[in-house]
Amino acid sequence: MENCERIDAANRACVAAIVEAQPYWVDILPAREVIEGLPERTVLHSGPPIAFADMCELHRRGMIGAALLEGWAGNAAEAANMLESGAIRVDSALNYNTVGSGVGIVTPSVALMVVEDRRTGKRAGVFPHEGAFGGGFCGWGVYSKEIAENLRWMREELFPVVSDALRRAGGISLKPILAESLQMGDENHSRQTAADLLTIRELMPCLARVRKSTAEIFPAVEYFTGTPRFFHNIGQAAARAALLSAHGIADSTVVTAMCGNGVEFGIKVSGLGDRWFTAPSPMIRGYFARENCSEKDQLPWIGDSSVCETVGLGGIAGAASPIVCAYRQLKLVDAIAVTREMQTICAGRNPAYVIPNLDFDCLPVGVDVRRVVETGIAPVLHVGIIDHAGGWIGAGGARVPMECFSKALDALRQDGVIGE
Amino acid sequence: MENCERIDAANRACVAAIVEAQPYWVDILPAREVIEGLPERTVLHSGPPIAFADMCELHRRGMIGAALLEGWAGNAAEAANMLESGAIRVDSALNYNTVGSGVGIVTPSVALMVVEDRRTGKRAGVFPHEGAFGGGFCGWGVYSKEIAENLRWMREELFPVVSDALRRAGGISLKPILAESLQMGDENHSRQTAADLLTIRELMPCLARVRKSTAEIFPAVEYFTGTPRFFHNIGQAAARAALLSAHGIADSTVVTAMCGNGVEFGIKVSGLGDRWFTAPSPMIRGYFARENCSEKDQLPWIGDSSVCETVGLGGIAGAASPIVCAYRQLKLVDAIAVTREMQTICAGRNPAYVIPNLDFDCLPVGVDVRRVVETGIAPVLHVGIIDHAGGWIGAGGARVPMECFSKALDALRQDGVIGE
Repeated sequence: MENCERIDAANRACVAAIVEAQPYWVDILPAREVIEGLPERTVLHSGPPIAFADMCELHRRGMIGAALLEGWAGNAAEAANMLESGAIRVDSALNYNTVGSGVGIVTPSVALMVVEDRRTGKRAGVFPHEGAFGGGFCGWGVYSKEIAENLRWMREELFPVVSDALRRAGGISLKPILAESLQMGDENHSRQTAADLLTIRELMPCLARVRKSTAEIFPAVEYFTGTPRFFHNIGQAAARAALLSAHGIADSTVVTAMCGNGVEFGIKVSGLGDRWFTAPSPMIRGYFARENCSEKDQLPWIGDSSVCETVGLGGIAGAASPIVCAYRQLKLVDAIAVTREMQTICAGRNPAYVIPNLDFDCLPVGVDVRRVVETGIAPVLHVGIIDHAGGWIGAGGARVPMECFSKALDALRQDGVIGE
Repeated sequence: MENCERIDAANRACVAAIVEAQPYWVDILPAREVIEGLPERTVLHSGPPIAFADMCELHRRGMIGAALLEGWAGNAAEAANMLESGAIRVDSALNYNTVGSGVGIVTPSVALMVVEDRRTGKRAGVFPHEGAFGGGFCGWGVYSKEIAENLRWMREELFPVVSDALRRAGGISLKPILAESLQMGDENHSRQTAADLLTIRELMPCLARVRKSTAEIFPAVEYFTGTPRFFHNIGQAAARAALLSAHGIADSTVVTAMCGNGVEFGIKVSGLGDRWFTAPSPMIRGYFARENCSEKDQLPWIGDSSVCETVGLGGIAGAASPIVCAYRQLKLVDAIAVTREMQTICAGRNPAYVIPNLDFDCLPVGVDVRRVVETGIAPVLHVGIIDHAGGWIGAGGARVPMECFSKALDALRQDGVIGE
């Protein structure tokens, strides 16, 4: 009983850190200026930690591309040798103040969108959408001269004017954008159509104010108005900043990281420090956009974009987005039922996220390890389906493997957080 | 039977004209260059035709303001005399290729947003949102030096750059904007949050392309990003252009105009030419935003914004917008039921407007006089509630008076369109 009260209080504090976060998009800076404690010659990747030798092909490709992009290796063979020997280190993005959808490659020179939780000062950086190259290098680990040049152009030519505009404006507050977009059909994992548009509305006057010539702002105007889902990356940084604030609360059984590397899926828990609790990466169920595609073509879950569900969006917010739920063949009533079910495994509710399709009820937030194991209900994640080469072949949803939660519950017992 | 087939074919043609309309926002021009056949010294107003002497105070105020704005009268007394004597003429906006929400004042010098139905070449002009002045002169009939100066500034300084941008871009296609916004919580009468944003996304690059200096585009950037519901006016012009294409189809029993003047509510029917079928203006039911307000404070229906319902939006599209339906104390299931009910009185469906909350069914379109009378179900209209001085005091919905439809049905019988 005493244990329960202590845990509940800790979980309330953890949920409060997520719910009361004040994420502002404040800057765009090279990763080396954003990521705290990043060792030399280190490449970050999505999902729980994994050795180079054990990575799926997509991740291995990305690691080699990273070594070439940064000039640490002269060719692919040399890069592979350095990665195998440890001369180039690899680590999980979610062990740092960043987050990576897809393969989630972060290297020192890549420009990151920087989001600050103004309540705590925690900052998270996330790589941007690569425009015409889509996921490109950071999201899909593709390396070419054109992609490298695009990353340089973004960092040195496209984004400085945006960075200036953000600084002059004192940042753009993301919570109102997230809240309003959730009333406009976004669940903010697989869909952020409204969030894109709301950000454009905020950003355009800032851009027009910061330069005298339209030629100077035009590439940025074109990038933001012409890049669907650019907000996905910014939204992940907002989620990550909130979760950095929510992590490390003693006795909290609330999940603060969920992610996959194509081999394993892992979670972290607020009260369990840096430990990962892993299980085999789940498959995604949904629809295939290409003919003759089936489950054998798909890569098991890869990516940190489930940071969205970790803060109560995406699959948790299914009721907000019948469009995304339809990818999973769900009708409106089923979409609403998803969010109602997720409430049973969440520690709290988010009063900022009020959903018209729930007759103006709030979204659940804060997956509680205890409740997941008790109910046998795992969190629902929304996501795109990709093949083993990183090609987009569909969209759907998955459940986090139950084993992650049972392992975490064991650790909570071993630590004495939960009584035997 | 033969009659029925003839009518059904005519109604299909009428619905096709609405559904297949290709509205483009093409220009911004003074009313005198847009409105076809507008006689000298004429003020247009919302609702069915009404003599100056019979108008509600709000309309009388607007007429006098119009005379002063145009310099036809030196003072209010002189203006009233000229309006009473017929030296200044008044007529219904919906007798011309325009449309007016609120009091709907259109005078020759006011700049109008011009929308063209590219399928037929029909053009409709509608006055813009007056920015900081809200409904201002055109929408609420308020006249002051500041309002007159704002209208001049909009026409001569704010809008020329927008006009240039639209022309250079070849216009902005409104149908994709309407279709997408209906999947994002807009019903496009009382709410156009998404339509605003989608238009901003289209317009911003056009503006940045058309001038070299950001100072020259900044007022327009500020107007569109800072004026919630600016799209309402543009959307009405899109609806009006489609209805101009749909009107005048022999034997069609589909409604092509619905509007009120605060005293009477009137409808037109595609196959019944210029005739109006009127009944006393209905009251609006919903919520009052101000304390101590009740039905006695509200003006009966005034305005042509029900042009939205006439093309199958607004109240007809309730399922698309639980937020707007909540103004009427409706839950999600009730909002969906509204649209399902409206299908029973509509002649067709709009395949372009697919609604997630209807499990991706289409919206109904084309109110059929016969079905309304047969079922006893009148069209639902969404709208704001205003007081007798034009102040906004709430929001809700109303039903078009059944008498309008029974009178129209009588006329269809007298004309021999419908057999006895």
